[in-house]
Amino acid sequence: MQRKSFAEMECPIARSIEQVGDGWTLLILRNAFLGARRFADFESRLGIPPTTLARRLERLVSIGLFTRHRYEARPPREEYELTDKGLALLPLILTLAAWGNRWLMPDNVAIECMDPKTKRALDPVLVDRSTRRELLPGEVALRAGPCASPALREGLRRGIVLGAGAPAAEAR
Amino acid sequence: MQRKSFAEMECPIARSIEQVGDGWTLLILRNAFLGARRFADFESRLGIPPTTLARRLERLVSIGLFTRHRYEARPPREEYELTDKGLALLPLILTLAAWGNRWLMPDNVAIECMDPKTKRALDPVLVDRSTRRELLPGEVALRAGPCASPALREGLRRGIVLGAGAPAAEAR
Repeated sequence: MQRKSFAEMECPIARSIEQVGDGWTLLILRNAFLGARRFADFESRLGIPPTTLARRLERLVSIGLFTRHRYEARPPREEYELTDKGLALLPLILTLAAWGNRWLMPDNVAIECMDPKTKRALDPVLVDRSTRRELLPGEVALRAGPCASPALREGLRRGIVLGAGAPAAEAR
Repeated sequence: MQRKSFAEMECPIARSIEQVGDGWTLLILRNAFLGARRFADFESRLGIPPTTLARRLERLVSIGLFTRHRYEARPPREEYELTDKGLALLPLILTLAAWGNRWLMPDNVAIECMDPKTKRALDPVLVDRSTRRELLPGEVALRAGPCASPALREGLRRGIVLGAGAPAAEAR
């Protein structure tokens, strides 16, 4: 993928997509959250071609989502472990799970979330940290942050409401 | 991508990844949330090759994330609008934004979320709907849902704690 503009480089969504916006990468991350650590774990669970898996793991280590450490000297074998940066993707994985259950298999739920201590079902919802109010389309806007370039600042001057229905200024 | 197992087909995360786990698709969805509606809007903002864009839009309509409607008869021109199923991906987009700001550009935040009415900053966090407690690694488990196959039910019998640190049963 090419990048269109400097504004694109400033966008945290685009930056995140560049690191994790890939099907195999997301499935590898999912399996790491499920407990997979070794090459063979990922390979057998995902049915991913080994060269594809090796490339993805290499990249996930290089961008700091996994650490790699050797667990066997001969033959050399390594384990992959989620870093804090990788573990911070749990909300992404849970959001995919919740959306899938709600929109792709509403009458056919096969896997659900629960609290491991109380065994109570958990229903993931995205809220604002301080008010705990759900973040809904039409009720969240974007604005320039402290490090926005002048061009981006101008583009966001009036704010952009996400999923507002009417075409926003940015897109005209 | 191939699918490995029937269990894989039951996984809501894998199902979601199959629909939206692609870089261009995610960028197109982001721009739709920002207000883009027309082919030219997406094309100019993203610098995406037109054939790639056409293919992605076609697929997004076919899986029900966009509706398409004609806004000009001659020449025929169409607009794309997020459906409720598409709008339900707002948490995914906001989660990517929050992770990007926190982990990819912590000292360089260019875009942030705010409440369009109060202008107060918003900080997206994933919580359980009923308790409003943040969902953290090691504190969320997966279990079989009502429609799990016997094989999946057996695999999930002891539950899998996400990001628990120690390799979970599933991955051994």
